[in-house]
Amino acid sequence: MSAAIRLAWRGQGHVEPNPMVGCLIVRDGVVIGEGYHAKFGGPHAEVAALQSLDSVDDARGATAYVTLEPCCHFGKTPPCADALVDAGVGRVVIAMQDPFEQVAGGGITRLRAAGIGVTVGVLGDEAAAMNAPFIKRVREGRPWVIAKWAMTIDGRIATESGESQWITGASSRAAVHQLRGRVDAIVVGMGTVIADDPMLDARPPGARVANRIVFCRRRLPGIDSKLVRTAAGVPLWLVAGPEVDAEKLRQLASLGAKVIPVATGDGVGMVDQAIGELAKNGATNVMLEGGGELLSSFFAANQVDECHVYIGAKAFGGAAAPGPIGGVGVASLDQAWRFELRELDRFDGDVRLIYRRSAD
Amino acid sequence: MSAAIRLAWRGQGHVEPNPMVGCLIVRDGVVIGEGYHAKFGGPHAEVAALQSLDSVDDARGATAYVTLEPCCHFGKTPPCADALVDAGVGRVVIAMQDPFEQVAGGGITRLRAAGIGVTVGVLGDEAAAMNAPFIKRVREGRPWVIAKWAMTIDGRIATESGESQWITGASSRAAVHQLRGRVDAIVVGMGTVIADDPMLDARPPGARVANRIVFCRRRLPGIDSKLVRTAAGVPLWLVAGPEVDAEKLRQLASLGAKVIPVATGDGVGMVDQAIGELAKNGATNVMLEGGGELLSSFFAANQVDECHVYIGAKAFGGAAAPGPIGGVGVASLDQAWRFELRELDRFDGDVRLIYRRSAD
Repeated sequence: MSAAIRLAWRGQGHVEPNPMVGCLIVRDGVVIGEGYHAKFGGPHAEVAALQSLDSVDDARGATAYVTLEPCCHFGKTPPCADALVDAGVGRVVIAMQDPFEQVAGGGITRLRAAGIGVTVGVLGDEAAAMNAPFIKRVREGRPWVIAKWAMTIDGRIATESGESQWITGASSRAAVHQLRGRVDAIVVGMGTVIADDPMLDARPPGARVANRIVFCRRRLPGIDSKLVRTAAGVPLWLVAGPEVDAEKLRQLASLGAKVIPVATGDGVGMVDQAIGELAKNGATNVMLEGGGELLSSFFAANQVDECHVYIGAKAFGGAAAPGPIGGVGVASLDQAWRFELRELDRFDGDVRLIYRRSAD
Repeated sequence: MSAAIRLAWRGQGHVEPNPMVGCLIVRDGVVIGEGYHAKFGGPHAEVAALQSLDSVDDARGATAYVTLEPCCHFGKTPPCADALVDAGVGRVVIAMQDPFEQVAGGGITRLRAAGIGVTVGVLGDEAAAMNAPFIKRVREGRPWVIAKWAMTIDGRIATESGESQWITGASSRAAVHQLRGRVDAIVVGMGTVIADDPMLDARPPGARVANRIVFCRRRLPGIDSKLVRTAAGVPLWLVAGPEVDAEKLRQLASLGAKVIPVATGDGVGMVDQAIGELAKNGATNVMLEGGGELLSSFFAANQVDECHVYIGAKAFGGAAAPGPIGGVGVASLDQAWRFELRELDRFDGDVRLIYRRSAD
């Protein structure tokens, strides 16, 4: 199952909004077939694994290890449970049940009805952690939110005078572009648009083009901003509060921006109202690129699932130099937002720490 | 030489203000003796290595690898260069010359005069990095300054309401106590004394008892503070600016505190005036424990050589929540204080990053 999970990871950034899935077919302790869901709309892992066999008859009586319950419905492809039954597989070991309501145990029932022995729950936690973004979207109707920031060793994202380019080196920035190339949406606040005039694209361009989303409490991006000038080619969404200039908003819409209106200009309220809209539009992974006010709103709304913290080997000092999360912050230490360290990497002189929200 | 350097490190925290030194004696490619300077006042590495031989005659014609030039003066022990000559060593390989003015090439001269072949500079950079604190004290008359802080993943040392205990876990705090147990002095500002009433001791108690130093710009520690109440047993030094209450200062001196008067209450000026005094009193390694103003003064005075950054897996947020280095900060990005990552460790859920000041 561990090998099947490693296989499944290869689909990251290509299969969303589907989950990542891997499958091994084993006979007498030997792996005779393997496959994974490689691309949205393409074959599921089970079918890919069956197709990888020397002969389709090899599956007869063999054991299939799948990281997620095989599907039982016609989606983009025929049901995988049926494919396993048709192939004559003798036993199926499944890491976890599919939370998707059109499956949700139906695949397991189908297999058992065909007389196949089914075991569920092998490395289930690991499989669930891998597909946590998919599971959150399906269960809660909200996307997985990744906050990314670069800071100095003393926790500053800019000097007191506002300089911030660059805190980290080229290798770190390349890793950020990799992340941009696998998420469904990149979100920034208006402060960042005004300060940096960012493009928010992924270099080198990947398979996935992330929607670029701007939270607009009062101000709107200028006509001449890079985001608006490229809106015809790369999707630009504006989450617009009631205080923005309605005339200018219409003009931006005519230039290709999609508008998501929200009924409040309060940061946390905007997050609460807009975030479901992102999931409905198919966003599984959403990345926050700043600034401090936007991050503060997402943290205060308890919607930050993962943090990618880049640390550049310099210090700025200064009581007034900004940190990555602005706004009001937690009222007391026992209310701190708690995380767990998942990965720790070096990029030349920089360090990247990846955290996930703590379960307890 | 690499093995000799590893040996030398074992003396860290026990030999200061002496340098760490390791020595191997090799014959026909086989290590027949080894030693290191283990304790201030105890035998030097060369003598320890000679004593480790099965027979003193084994040294005759052998090669000695030493991480630092053998001494040529009578200090606490007789000159090591003479010991090597007397033992009949055939060749001596030295990582680096001793910058200490009573040696400074004299040991090498002594060896060569006795007809011994001497090579200098093997792994010299590594040996110099190991003894950077010793070298700084000897060359510049200033101690090596280690700034230590614990912060959240968003670079805060406290919440907006001022809560800060605890950001990191028990394993991290144990590592801090280890560091306290090997430095010569622990420095804090008055803000930290008032906020935390710290003891600044090392638990468990080590061989070395660090002097506890408080920078007092205007205020002085209270009679009832833990620092003053323990001043009779553990040294307490007060670096006192001209604005402190002279009467109270005399009272604290009568209770056992040593006073280092400085002519200014300006943070950077106080550092510049006091830091030489610390080296003169034998401090090789000095540790800064906060708060933000004190760190800011040492950074601005360009006296921070090493940073130990502990990161706890939580976030506080809040534009007004303090970061580790307060004060004014750098004026622009190209004036940022630059460092190089030297070590990266995990302590349960925490991360420790150790940086040294960048050479260029």
